[in-house]
Amino acid sequence: MITVLRLGHRIERDKRLTTHVALISRALGADKILFTGQHDKSLIDSINKITEKFGGPFSIEYIKNYKELLNKNSEIIHLTVYGIPLSKVINKIRKSKKDKIIIIGSEKVPPEIYHLANYNISITNQPHSEAGALAIFLHELFKGKYKDFKNPKIKIVPQSKGKKLIKS
Amino acid sequence: MITVLRLGHRIERDKRLTTHVALISRALGADKILFTGQHDKSLIDSINKITEKFGGPFSIEYIKNYKELLNKNSEIIHLTVYGIPLSKVINKIRKSKKDKIIIIGSEKVPPEIYHLANYNISITNQPHSEAGALAIFLHELFKGKYKDFKNPKIKIVPQSKGKKLIKS
Repeated sequence: MITVLRLGHRIERDKRLTTHVALISRALGADKILFTGQHDKSLIDSINKITEKFGGPFSIEYIKNYKELLNKNSEIIHLTVYGIPLSKVINKIRKSKKDKIIIIGSEKVPPEIYHLANYNISITNQPHSEAGALAIFLHELFKGKYKDFKNPKIKIVPQSKGKKLIKS
Repeated sequence: MITVLRLGHRIERDKRLTTHVALISRALGADKILFTGQHDKSLIDSINKITEKFGGPFSIEYIKNYKELLNKNSEIIHLTVYGIPLSKVINKIRKSKKDKIIIIGSEKVPPEIYHLANYNISITNQPHSEAGALAIFLHELFKGKYKDFKNPKIKIVPQSKGKKLIKS
């Protein structure tokens, strides 16, 4: 079970970024995304619509407090520009059979997260984007192999030019 | 020379996403980003500040029209959910010595882009994020090896817990 935990969502400021982060989570193989901060029904609805249309399973949920979650027996992976390079730990993480919680922040991540995490991992030590970091982390975790989604109403068929969709 | 071309930037709606896309471009090895749509001085300033602080070279520029740009002798790579899988073409793209222009859209990409492009490439055929797609594309293009930035005022030093910065 791969869970993405997005900390400190702010409806006004983060609406589109959290949507992108949720879509990245789904497309690249996470099972669910949880978010803290502000409750955002329209975010939840828009992601559930994508899952209905393009297949699942995938879920999105608001949680008030992340602390209970992190007491569980999961591996906690925090993506941060300050962490150690992905390439140094990815093999170990791939081999472990434990459930994983991948934490990404929005503005400022509480200092305790750095200590609660089993891994603080950087995708380059240059400032970039939690969306980009999450995409590369999941891509590497699954070695670029993507899951098949179940019960899609629409499927996109790869094309060298143009667009092709199949409805079922 | 690797250029990212972000189409149709809208100040209100895309401010933060285009910032993330620009930071991904810089951090993961592109030489510059160009954007069309609305001119946005504060976007340009914020990216230039990051480059001053964390090193270069990297540049950001607004252009009115992308057509002239695409007439040049560059390989045009359009990232789209409708394209062919990255894994099928990445070796060929890595071997080519041509300059590359990597196109990502915001809302709707003009149909002609699909025909102007040498490659229409998908990072999964599931809807996700131009930020995520760009991050994975650049990560794969450079096989996860990141460039050294010149003349940084600040350097982040990888840590397993906490934050470490060096000022120079």
